[in-house]
Amino acid sequence: MSLGAFLMETGHHIAAWRHPDTHAAGGLDFTHYAQLARIAERAKFDAIFFADSVSVRDTHLPSLSRTARADHFEPLTLLSALSVVTDRIGLIATVSTSFNEPYNVARKFASLDHLSGGRSGWNLVTSSTETEAHNFSLDRHLDHAVRYERAKEFYDVVAGLWDSWEDDAFVRDKASGIYFDADKLHVLGHRGKHFSVRGPLNVARSPQGWPVVVQAGASEAGRELAAQTAEVIFVAHQTLDEAQQFYRDVKGRLARYGRAPEHLKIMPGIFPVIGKTQQEAHDKFDALQELIDPAVGLALLSKMSGGIDLSQYPVDGPVPELPETNGGKSRQRLLLDLARRDNLTIRDLYLRIAGARGHQQVIGTPQSIADQLQQWFEEEGADGFNIMSPWLPGGLSEFVDTVVPELQRRGLFRTEYAGRTLREHLGLPRPVNRHAQKAPERGELAAAAS
Amino acid sequence: MSLGAFLMETGHHIAAWRHPDTHAAGGLDFTHYAQLARIAERAKFDAIFFADSVSVRDTHLPSLSRTARADHFEPLTLLSALSVVTDRIGLIATVSTSFNEPYNVARKFASLDHLSGGRSGWNLVTSSTETEAHNFSLDRHLDHAVRYERAKEFYDVVAGLWDSWEDDAFVRDKASGIYFDADKLHVLGHRGKHFSVRGPLNVARSPQGWPVVVQAGASEAGRELAAQTAEVIFVAHQTLDEAQQFYRDVKGRLARYGRAPEHLKIMPGIFPVIGKTQQEAHDKFDALQELIDPAVGLALLSKMSGGIDLSQYPVDGPVPELPETNGGKSRQRLLLDLARRDNLTIRDLYLRIAGARGHQQVIGTPQSIADQLQQWFEEEGADGFNIMSPWLPGGLSEFVDTVVPELQRRGLFRTEYAGRTLREHLGLPRPVNRHAQKAPERGELAAAAS
Repeated sequence: MSLGAFLMETGHHIAAWRHPDTHAAGGLDFTHYAQLARIAERAKFDAIFFADSVSVRDTHLPSLSRTARADHFEPLTLLSALSVVTDRIGLIATVSTSFNEPYNVARKFASLDHLSGGRSGWNLVTSSTETEAHNFSLDRHLDHAVRYERAKEFYDVVAGLWDSWEDDAFVRDKASGIYFDADKLHVLGHRGKHFSVRGPLNVARSPQGWPVVVQAGASEAGRELAAQTAEVIFVAHQTLDEAQQFYRDVKGRLARYGRAPEHLKIMPGIFPVIGKTQQEAHDKFDALQELIDPAVGLALLSKMSGGIDLSQYPVDGPVPELPETNGGKSRQRLLLDLARRDNLTIRDLYLRIAGARGHQQVIGTPQSIADQLQQWFEEEGADGFNIMSPWLPGGLSEFVDTVVPELQRRGLFRTEYAGRTLREHLGLPRPVNRHAQKAPERGELAAAAS
Repeated sequence: MSLGAFLMETGHHIAAWRHPDTHAAGGLDFTHYAQLARIAERAKFDAIFFADSVSVRDTHLPSLSRTARADHFEPLTLLSALSVVTDRIGLIATVSTSFNEPYNVARKFASLDHLSGGRSGWNLVTSSTETEAHNFSLDRHLDHAVRYERAKEFYDVVAGLWDSWEDDAFVRDKASGIYFDADKLHVLGHRGKHFSVRGPLNVARSPQGWPVVVQAGASEAGRELAAQTAEVIFVAHQTLDEAQQFYRDVKGRLARYGRAPEHLKIMPGIFPVIGKTQQEAHDKFDALQELIDPAVGLALLSKMSGGIDLSQYPVDGPVPELPETNGGKSRQRLLLDLARRDNLTIRDLYLRIAGARGHQQVIGTPQSIADQLQQWFEEEGADGFNIMSPWLPGGLSEFVDTVVPELQRRGLFRTEYAGRTLREHLGLPRPVNRHAQKAPERGELAAAAS
């Protein structure tokens, strides 16, 4: 079983910053993140993970100004610094394909992979909000289909750049003066619909060959892109049945692209609230929920539903039908299904997602939480989990000190790292350089030329 | 006097990687850079500095494959990691305005400034090579004038984003639930010729207010941009007379923009080769020069002259007239002036620049080197120097252990850091937030509204 630690400022719960045990200014305090990374590494987690967006969603200041979501580190600068205070744990950052250039992205993740000795991972997202587009000289966001088309080409360029150099290209022989073997340098020469990128990358091939590619899209286009390109999927499910359907569907798509099912790890998000008893766990959760300002709850729901304003509806009435927008389609469907299934009011729904925000809340004892993770893992709902601690560092420490030992006792989770790279932790193969496979040809050419 | 350490893989000399005391693979070894940063910090340098380009200049593989210039860390990921192993020294990275988006750049430097407690600096460059343009979906590079026009607008956007939040915007009051004061959030709303960026930035105003802005362009457009926006200029001069002319010219432009002369620090590059005697220093230099492969020397000269191929001319004949190209104009002029003044052949010229690459070579004893730095400093040729050690770490260690103590003895350089931020080291004021100056108005509005 794989475990990731999703780290978000003072915690995943929307009111976590008001929790008495959190450091309210933690979002821009490096020592806070260093502590979190060390806790996760002590528990032998596969990776720490940072989400990202490239805007402040300031459309509703009364709610925004009551959350800790407006100021945080840029994930790659933060992860580069965290690489120094950790030794084994994977380092996954979110970077959007809509607002960056593939050369810069290929280079930064390769650089982080070298810095960290093979621990970097890229969570490829297409971004989905208009507020982000407005920071990048776009009047409106690209359409969903165009975003995914661009993302696929972006990925192809990045992966191609990561193969610019064969693994043994740099000989650095002081005596002869040969620094690299020019035959092992490869120009990409990509000319496509969205990008023209010549290459080569100005970073040697990195310890993992390619940094691990992660995705989080669950729409049809997202699943298809993941089947072609992803090695890890972070996903939100509410029930085992949903999780199993998704797992079967995505794993079933892999053969079409010549990929084995075990080369894509599916890791649903889990929002764990842990108590010595069930009652204690629920009490802890209720205490957090009480810290939510109603303005914050409503605005969060509006955001999670793809930009629709629900403040016009009665907060204790039913959730209205939501027209499909240009935002994240899979999240809209997920929220509607949830409200229908459990017959929720708007207030019920915002309280429900305010904690886990579409991911599964697991409120219970270490044993009951381990039971559920075990069931999802053994019954093909998940290859692992992304742990979204309600508040930090306390929520993560509790998970590490109580649930992880229970998983280890059951033989479900490692007690020591076996490898050094993120790929090794996840059980993913190191990609062979596409050009290295042509080595015999090159040998023949060299022989013919001499 | 300010001192910066220009850190480039195994050293500034083109053959440094072949020097017996360098670690040839240092360019992608974090421990190498951690050692260099600590050496510079031990000597109380103002900053370490990383140049950058976003391509491999692979137009001439026989020469490129004999240099250590094709693979290196991306500067911002590297500096973020170095922020953890240092405590006081400034951290300056080069990022191009031609191949990035201002929102991303504003954010990364603000993030690094928070990570490092106020030590980040941005060397704003426009980039000048076609090989870089080809990695960013451009068939050819933007024209010189357009690059500078874009750079100025890019800077305006970045500086505007850095003022998105007033310094005291984040109150983070758990009791009331107010995380930030919404009146202290400011939307930029920039709509210009090259960019439309709404803002606000999703990072709180950083310890320095604005990270320090550095520039290196010496053309007319570069000087004018620097006079408007730069706080430090890294520049290449061969003679004190040149340095003084430049110093007077640029400082003289500041009043036009309401700026004081002491708020822009001019720091020429210095390539020091140090011996106990003059002879020992020259022997050290000759030993490095002998490591230069002729193919490397010619290619370097071609690159430094703005992309003109000189391999068609007799290597021991005079340097031909160079037509002006779309590359870096100031460097072309600099090289031509140098060749005319000293009556150099092509070989002479490549050997001359192969070390310092247009910057001043200072070959001598600690005393004679200190004499020269003192003269340039006292006679208004420089506010400080960017030390481009021939090989690393040895060349930097020698400077730190012999020249720095001599400068300290003369009262020219600090023996301890007085401040904590890069601005404090350089004696630069912390910019007042443009919106904070309007605070009384806001108070009146609030009073009127209540």
